[in-house]
Amino acid sequence: MIKVGVLGATGAVGQRFVQLLARHPWFDLVTLCASDRSAGKRYGDVVNWKLDVPFPESVRDIRVSPTTTAAVKQLDLVFSALPAEVATEAEDEIARAGVAVCSNARSHRMEPDIPLVIPEVNPDHLGLIDVQRDRGREGFIVTNPNCSTIMLCMGLEPLRKMAWTDVRVATMQAISGAGFSGVAAMDIYDNVVPYIGQEEEKMETETLKIMGKFDGAEVKDAPFLVSASCHRVPVIDGHTLSVWVDCPEDVEKVKEAFSRYSPPFSGLPTQPERSIQYFDAPDRPQPRLDRNRGNGMTVSVGRVRPGLRFIALGHNTIRGAAGASVLNAELIHTKKYL
Amino acid sequence: MIKVGVLGATGAVGQRFVQLLARHPWFDLVTLCASDRSAGKRYGDVVNWKLDVPFPESVRDIRVSPTTTAAVKQLDLVFSALPAEVATEAEDEIARAGVAVCSNARSHRMEPDIPLVIPEVNPDHLGLIDVQRDRGREGFIVTNPNCSTIMLCMGLEPLRKMAWTDVRVATMQAISGAGFSGVAAMDIYDNVVPYIGQEEEKMETETLKIMGKFDGAEVKDAPFLVSASCHRVPVIDGHTLSVWVDCPEDVEKVKEAFSRYSPPFSGLPTQPERSIQYFDAPDRPQPRLDRNRGNGMTVSVGRVRPGLRFIALGHNTIRGAAGASVLNAELIHTKKYL
Amino acid sequence: MIKVGVLGATGAVGQRFVQLLARHPWFDLVTLCASDRSAGKRYGDVVNWKLDVPFPESVRDIRVSPTTTAAVKQLDLVFSALPAEVATEAEDEIARAGVAVCSNARSHRMEPDIPLVIPEVNPDHLGLIDVQRDRGREGFIVTNPNCSTIMLCMGLEPLRKMAWTDVRVATMQAISGAGFSGVAAMDIYDNVVPYIGQEEEKMETETLKIMGKFDGAEVKDAPFLVSASCHRVPVIDGHTLSVWVDCPEDVEKVKEAFSRYSPPFSGLPTQPERSIQYFDAPDRPQPRLDRNRGNGMTVSVGRVRPGLRFIALGHNTIRGAAGASVLNAELIHTKKYL
Amino acid sequence: MIKVGVLGATGAVGQRFVQLLARHPWFDLVTLCASDRSAGKRYGDVVNWKLDVPFPESVRDIRVSPTTTAAVKQLDLVFSALPAEVATEAEDEIARAGVAVCSNARSHRMEPDIPLVIPEVNPDHLGLIDVQRDRGREGFIVTNPNCSTIMLCMGLEPLRKMAWTDVRVATMQAISGAGFSGVAAMDIYDNVVPYIGQEEEKMETETLKIMGKFDGAEVKDAPFLVSASCHRVPVIDGHTLSVWVDCPEDVEKVKEAFSRYSPPFSGLPTQPERSIQYFDAPDRPQPRLDRNRGNGMTVSVGRVRPGLRFIALGHNTIRGAAGASVLNAELIHTKKYL
Repeated sequence: MIKVGVLGATGAVGQRFVQLLARHPWFDLVTLCASDRSAGKRYGDVVNWKLDVPFPESVRDIRVSPTTTAAVKQLDLVFSALPAEVATEAEDEIARAGVAVCSNARSHRMEPDIPLVIPEVNPDHLGLIDVQRDRGREGFIVTNPNCSTIMLCMGLEPLRKMAWTDVRVATMQAISGAGFSGVAAMDIYDNVVPYIGQEEEKMETETLKIMGKFDGAEVKDAPFLVSASCHRVPVIDGHTLSVWVDCPEDVEKVKEAFSRYSPPFSGLPTQPERSIQYFDAPDRPQPRLDRNRGNGMTVSVGRVRPGLRFIALGHNTIRGAAGASVLNAELIHTKKYL
Repeated sequence: MIKVGVLGATGAVGQRFVQLLARHPWFDLVTLCASDRSAGKRYGDVVNWKLDVPFPESVRDIRVSPTTTAAVKQLDLVFSALPAEVATEAEDEIARAGVAVCSNARSHRMEPDIPLVIPEVNPDHLGLIDVQRDRGREGFIVTNPNCSTIMLCMGLEPLRKMAWTDVRVATMQAISGAGFSGVAAMDIYDNVVPYIGQEEEKMETETLKIMGKFDGAEVKDAPFLVSASCHRVPVIDGHTLSVWVDCPEDVEKVKEAFSRYSPPFSGLPTQPERSIQYFDAPDRPQPRLDRNRGNGMTVSVGRVRPGLRFIALGHNTIRGAAGASVLNAELIHTKKYL
Repeated sequence: MIKVGVLGATGAVGQRFVQLLARHPWFDLVTLCASDRSAGKRYGDVVNWKLDVPFPESVRDIRVSPTTTAAVKQLDLVFSALPAEVATEAEDEIARAGVAVCSNARSHRMEPDIPLVIPEVNPDHLGLIDVQRDRGREGFIVTNPNCSTIMLCMGLEPLRKMAWTDVRVATMQAISGAGFSGVAAMDIYDNVVPYIGQEEEKMETETLKIMGKFDGAEVKDAPFLVSASCHRVPVIDGHTLSVWVDCPEDVEKVKEAFSRYSPPFSGLPTQPERSIQYFDAPDRPQPRLDRNRGNGMTVSVGRVRPGLRFIALGHNTIRGAAGASVLNAELIHTKKYL
Repeated sequence: MIKVGVLGATGAVGQRFVQLLARHPWFDLVTLCASDRSAGKRYGDVVNWKLDVPFPESVRDIRVSPTTTAAVKQLDLVFSALPAEVATEAEDEIARAGVAVCSNARSHRMEPDIPLVIPEVNPDHLGLIDVQRDRGREGFIVTNPNCSTIMLCMGLEPLRKMAWTDVRVATMQAISGAGFSGVAAMDIYDNVVPYIGQEEEKMETETLKIMGKFDGAEVKDAPFLVSASCHRVPVIDGHTLSVWVDCPEDVEKVKEAFSRYSPPFSGLPTQPERSIQYFDAPDRPQPRLDRNRGNGMTVSVGRVRPGLRFIALGHNTIRGAAGASVLNAELIHTKKYL
């Protein structure tokens, strides 16, 4: 078993990490880091468990560690749900101490030698781990993209071989994306907020790196443009994306590409039965009905129309955050990087 | 005072008509038509008033009429909130009987000699009334567009003089757009439904007619394309539109065009102080906060970004339905068509 | 394996039955009955699956049967999610044909020889099955209470040995209790509806029968009064009850009674690890966080205060409907009535 | 005109004060106090106006003052929307400086010489102003009750002459009661929170003072008990109360008492046409439909059933807060206390 820990274990994404790792067949969750205030206490006593799945009893008695390199240096890998302002330094130091870091934070995503990976889309970018090592780092950092970016790239991946250029995407994002207390009820109930700080920029830059070409030394941005408009809607979990791709391809071929899609790997424990679920029904996918498919790891697509337009949807704190990181770690393990 | 009536007076749009007409300075609301079941009873006894504004006491005792030509032929004008399947014939017959019809139904919108009008956008299309009369109709029909189409056209109108081509629009539409019982709570709560029957088609065709050129005899479609993706979100009132326009214009000029916009008319009673409210704030407009501006008649725009992207928002059952029809009638009156 | 079927298999409660029975260790789900319109088609083709758990693939190809006695008479037991107006006759006829009926419908609940059972509360009332048989019925009918009544009785059961009299209860009930389309979004969003047809009457009469004494021949109503005030709130699943009991007992003893409670049976497959989950935290239980405890079968209680006041909460379509019926059937099986 | 100011003018209740006072016929709103951070800036520039009514342009250019006695001592009266921890001292000091204070804060409500007043219920308690003056205070403090308490007392007042004892009340309270950011969306969406800090205590004590007897020197608590259970529900504005009163009175007489009720004063500008709106319809009142009656000042009651049970409902930040204070000030003015 690979010894793992979670940084930022009490927040919205941190709790999802704990949910996914509590009974993981490869990873042994031994360390939970949180704020100094919680350090030393039992996880079960300090966490305000707000997920709608039961609290995993196996972690109740783990003593919470402070977020320090010392607390995790005996681990093989840590998952980071740290806020960006803390993650920048903390993740760097931990990686230098020889620990692998799978991070959901945005801090290092756009650095040239840090892989920004979705296993279904750009598994080869993990080659950047070697670049990191060549530069003398003992451990390494691998990041997963922003939640909305993941849903977008998953929707674009099956179309990769078709000739297309610009992408426009309007998102309808869930409340949980801002953490447990990031959105006040008075601000979102019976409302739409047509703005999420830095979200459009993330989608527009991360997508190009993820879908870019890795030549063994560096990643060259993909040659298209993404124009995003991001909106918060009154939905608990599940981001819905309304996508336009400038693509002359026949709609039926696109539907076929979605329905026949299979990922370039198999056997990863967190991998859902279907990475992509294609819907022919005119009114699907929908977040309440489809976010939990594949234990929250399936991305659902539908409403393929000329334009080319389609809908992509996934669970933002599982497939779009904690699950993305865990799937990355599983891929890293099978590629013998640990 | 011009004698007016409302067809379909008990439904969601019908109640909005009653709200707007109960104390109108030019129009005297004397007739309320509804289903045969209600005919003969007092309006106050049969209507299940579900608006969040008080019931207008002045109409409580009006005896509901059946939806027949006989019931309205003594009127100068009727407002129609009929469902399309009933409106097609009923409106036609009433117009032939010499009554002006301002209709919110989709039935006649796309007929060549029927004006599809937004006063701020294409007031000259009312010239089609003469075409109707030339063909022997005694009264006439004037229609207003679908709710989402109105918000889109209002957002495009200030940019009309700029060179632009294709339009893409993702809508986030309110529940009330489907009437009082059109959407089941189980279907929309904590959810997004990425489909509204025929809505995308309406936006794509109506917009071209409205923004098309009227040469005195017919309307020629505007020379651009609209590609719409329509979604229902958990909001009571207020449609939010996320718009892309292929337009090379400078963002600052676009902001200026929005903030300086003024309509080509004045003095209409239902006209708001500002037809368009432009926001510089990064997170506006929002349906709960902005739908009621100008008594629900103002269209709010904001988040102008390169791309060209912007947000447009309006009250779907007031500016997007009943209010649109009343404003049309007021314009018709000032143009001496009554 | 006991051969079972579901009546009304496509509705909100019917789908919950299918979810609970698809992989049941004792019951083999072989028959799914629905309206004549669906009969003959594959269940997977006619059901509009709206639960947030995945559709159970094992039932996809079952051919839907009409709701007739012929369709189910070869079964050992049927679960009924029929609407009351259909259930009255249909269930009676099926029972006379020799099939056991576990019904969630209200039709027969208050008949003197029909057990109205919650396994934790009045398992001995199953003795009425013998009364039914003595009267010549070949099969039998066993009913479970109304959803809110179940939560109330589960909350009262641990206090049974204390001396108390009147009960007052204000409910805050979920939308799903009215079925998939029973509540229009416009009626409940940003709203409370302080009325649910016949709900208060059901709680006031059913509770007395359930907690009444069975002497081997008949049930005598419990000697207290229930006064209910029922409200619909904007919650998808999970009924919350605010309860007052005229009880002089010490609050600490009541808390202890709740936390020590264990049911008078064990080993039933649908039985949760804890029938009652007691909370000391001041702000629990809450429907979104606690409705799914014990796979939706646990009733959560908390906020025990002098008065005597407490909160009880449970999943209305699982513990309060389909799960209640399945648990009854499991108890019936262990009691050798099948 | 009486010169007035608002303390805490930028918060949820403060904005309601501004809304109600901007065009008041008796009160001239000249001073708006807020945090030091805002002091010196234009109100229109610092307030984040989140009400669904338009921002009153007449106050846009008022320079915000700091919350000091110096800033308000030239006024006749200030309205306080201060948080309790600040209000305790600030209000006291302002009153000592000779200014009348109408406060919505809980700080001084239960002090023996401070009137806790609802004009319809206990206008005579204003006599405590003389008691304050006798003790040497130059100005005075008058408080209004907690929002839920107001709805309860308004519901009880018409029954005052009937013989009744204990009161039990379950509240379903709106989100706005906790201020603009007091409730996180993740905590209340699709949820009920069965706990509001100190709310039950407030209802249980304040009600007895308000309905108590004032003998010219002090108020003696009313001789009954209130037992409250308070719950937050996903509603923007409007508290719904489900009330039991131990009262043997005939239901028809109670309905009559509600429908015939008229207040012991008239001519106050903020007074609604009806202080109490009685509903016979089985499913009313409802917060979304009835909270805005009488511009938010009417309390609606309905569902009178034996028990004695009824529903009371009102707008929590208008009738339950800012409007309550303004109505108190109007009464104070007519009683010549200013």
